[in-house]
Amino acid sequence: MADQAQIGVIGMAVMGKNLALNIESRGYTVGIFNRTGSKTKNVVKEHADKKLVPSYSLEDFVKSLETPRRIIMMIKAGKPTDAVINELIPLLSKGDVLIDGGNTNFHSTMARNAKLDKSGINFIGMGVSGGELGALHGPSLMPGGQKEAYDLVEPILTKIAAKAKDGKPCVAYIGPNGAGHYVKMVHNGIEYGDEELIDESYNILRNVAKMSTDDLSNVFKDWNKGELNSYLVDITGDILSRKDDLGSDKSKPIVDMILDRGANKGTGKWSSEDALAIGAPQSLITESVYARFISMLKDERMKASKVLPGPDNKVDFNTKKLTEEVRQALYFGKIMSYAQGFEQLRFASENYDWNLKYGELAQIWREGCIIRAQFLQNITDAFDKDPKLTNLLLDPYFADIAKKYQDSARDVVALATKAGLPVPALSAAVSYYDSYRAQVLPANLLQAQRDYFGAHTYERVDRPGNFHYTWYKEQ
Amino acid sequence: MADQAQIGVIGMAVMGKNLALNIESRGYTVGIFNRTGSKTKNVVKEHADKKLVPSYSLEDFVKSLETPRRIIMMIKAGKPTDAVINELIPLLSKGDVLIDGGNTNFHSTMARNAKLDKSGINFIGMGVSGGELGALHGPSLMPGGQKEAYDLVEPILTKIAAKAKDGKPCVAYIGPNGAGHYVKMVHNGIEYGDEELIDESYNILRNVAKMSTDDLSNVFKDWNKGELNSYLVDITGDILSRKDDLGSDKSKPIVDMILDRGANKGTGKWSSEDALAIGAPQSLITESVYARFISMLKDERMKASKVLPGPDNKVDFNTKKLTEEVRQALYFGKIMSYAQGFEQLRFASENYDWNLKYGELAQIWREGCIIRAQFLQNITDAFDKDPKLTNLLLDPYFADIAKKYQDSARDVVALATKAGLPVPALSAAVSYYDSYRAQVLPANLLQAQRDYFGAHTYERVDRPGNFHYTWYKEQ
Repeated sequence: MADQAQIGVIGMAVMGKNLALNIESRGYTVGIFNRTGSKTKNVVKEHADKKLVPSYSLEDFVKSLETPRRIIMMIKAGKPTDAVINELIPLLSKGDVLIDGGNTNFHSTMARNAKLDKSGINFIGMGVSGGELGALHGPSLMPGGQKEAYDLVEPILTKIAAKAKDGKPCVAYIGPNGAGHYVKMVHNGIEYGDEELIDESYNILRNVAKMSTDDLSNVFKDWNKGELNSYLVDITGDILSRKDDLGSDKSKPIVDMILDRGANKGTGKWSSEDALAIGAPQSLITESVYARFISMLKDERMKASKVLPGPDNKVDFNTKKLTEEVRQALYFGKIMSYAQGFEQLRFASENYDWNLKYGELAQIWREGCIIRAQFLQNITDAFDKDPKLTNLLLDPYFADIAKKYQDSARDVVALATKAGLPVPALSAAVSYYDSYRAQVLPANLLQAQRDYFGAHTYERVDRPGNFHYTWYKEQ
Repeated sequence: MADQAQIGVIGMAVMGKNLALNIESRGYTVGIFNRTGSKTKNVVKEHADKKLVPSYSLEDFVKSLETPRRIIMMIKAGKPTDAVINELIPLLSKGDVLIDGGNTNFHSTMARNAKLDKSGINFIGMGVSGGELGALHGPSLMPGGQKEAYDLVEPILTKIAAKAKDGKPCVAYIGPNGAGHYVKMVHNGIEYGDEELIDESYNILRNVAKMSTDDLSNVFKDWNKGELNSYLVDITGDILSRKDDLGSDKSKPIVDMILDRGANKGTGKWSSEDALAIGAPQSLITESVYARFISMLKDERMKASKVLPGPDNKVDFNTKKLTEEVRQALYFGKIMSYAQGFEQLRFASENYDWNLKYGELAQIWREGCIIRAQFLQNITDAFDKDPKLTNLLLDPYFADIAKKYQDSARDVVALATKAGLPVPALSAAVSYYDSYRAQVLPANLLQAQRDYFGAHTYERVDRPGNFHYTWYKEQ
């Protein structure tokens, strides 16, 4: 009989395989299983020198594991996950730990955690970010579930996670039931926002300043040396330097050969759906989701482009000055996006009773994941200074940047708006800033309207209570 | 024994009572019931001369109705509605028609329709708009459910509904199961957008041009004489002329005494949630929902107002010119909002298989409801000309207005952005216009990013298929 494995991984697609190899490389024996056995066979063949214990039935797989068993599922979210869980339940024992590392909606994770808890089986919903390479070399991990279950896997997760510059692993116990998948969902929403802000910045410099992709590549590489330093700015600089590999003209920028239909796999829109459900103002991420939706309507857009003209007015600019203004606007936008994202996490923590540690979330996003950035250290620092910080904008560092960069953000939004270029995320950033710092919003007029047509009552500035104004003689 | 009633109303709060009186006034005998019998007694006492048949148990109420029975529930959405339905099921017979006139989520209506259909009981989810006075004098009605059930109530609904200028009743068969409540939900979302656009316009003229509420009242009254003619612009003109009735200084504008926390009852955010779920770009309504959410954070805003400064730059304007620009921007925004709203309805119709008639929806919103406006006749006309119109912006009338007013919309967004006043809805309108008419969006860069970090593949402009670029040497 083979050695018992300390942990098992179900699902030998690239994410599951790489995660298994990552764990093995830290000195563990790893049980592996895939519904289609040939995939498992291939993994073992390709990695014959590794301490992998293959199984070709779930029964054998479960038997191959030390107790309490630790199992990570890296399979398709939804029905496939439910099917495996249902098959596993009779095979598992009290105290075992089942981990779902897929991109699962947190509502499902909450339901599964509650269901399995009845049989005494621990269930962790774990966000895994960093793509294929992250899974292999060190992802950012966001596990949520029973604390005692986390303790049983903590040594392994700590070893396989990415490490930040200060040596801290990019993993922490997030909170009960759906907290881990929720945080991963907001991470993905924030990623949508980062991408949209970069894409709008690129679009302005490309179409107003008529910069070449090579020049733009240098701009992003330059930006990456400063406070915008991040994985996404880094790869954008690389992308814009790359030429087509397939078409007849290999000197063309690859970006120009790519169809402008922005796909999505759902997590960004889930993040916006829940922001709406719990009352968190999260406009920038939502605009980024809608920007993808509009981009998908390519046929409609081509028709519309023929009947809907752009503006007549020409815009004045100086390329060098504009480039710096766009850089400042991008950073301003990023701060607004994270302020909204962390505010959503605060609303969620209260709403779902999770007791999230915001500073730790910023910490574990510093490396390994798609939104990794120097700037996350500033967020970590802000919550270190004040763990109860209500909004990032109330932290002196971020308030100061906002103050310094707001004029550029305003100028860039105004310029793009006049030039006929869409800036849904950048303008949402400025409107959020101006709404958030407004002593009086026109919601007073809104409340008057609601009281007028629906007798919904209104609150007053000079006394507590709900009042109704006699707008007209009532029947 | 009393006369049998042709129809019954459950729920004698103001909406139910007024709807019952409206029906009675058209020559029908109406059975009425309320869980708390004293309310029913009061209605009968107050309206002793009316053909109302009161009942004090659901059994008696059901017995008081002609068969097939026609029952309208005007009660609180959610659990109270389920409770009444469950009590009614054993009392009803095959072919009876149960109507839910509450503000119910369309998902619930779909589930209830399917559940009751098993017992042969017809279930109509009906949107009712127009508030208390609408219910009494003529609401806009949006009934969805079995077509044969609609036919059984059509004569009554046609009589009680509001009438448009051309004499047509503001009611039509919307479609199966949840279609009626869905359309009401989008109506409410559009209403949020209309209100936010008006409130932003007011805010700019009040705070940039420093206009008094009396002057602003006249501006809105003036606007109401032109293409902006609508119930909401009308009441805004009235509201801004009204003075406080409670405070020590009765010369103060009432709007200044109202606390700027914008409440909501959920239908607007449901509309945005489903837009996200079905992939419909509906940014303007969503920004209007978020604007209410931000306004609710009054305490945070007061803190933020002390640490987050506004812009330094002063803005130039001429009050008369700005007033006309704001009017044009408001109409431009309204067109974008309805374009998005009707595009959401098209997505929903395909997604839920409802076969919605868009022109009829605009028709039945022309009177009776909160968004009633002269402009809805233009939408009706657009769909009359082309029932398969993909987007309102592709109709010549709307394309022409957008073309004429876009410069004002751009100028107003730029001015407000530079002045530090939030314009989330107006800027969403311009960004939507510029996205929708864009031949190329920066989503090509987005797809490159997604292919880079996640191997999500990309489509090309020169050939069909999905491709992956070798961004780096893969492990």
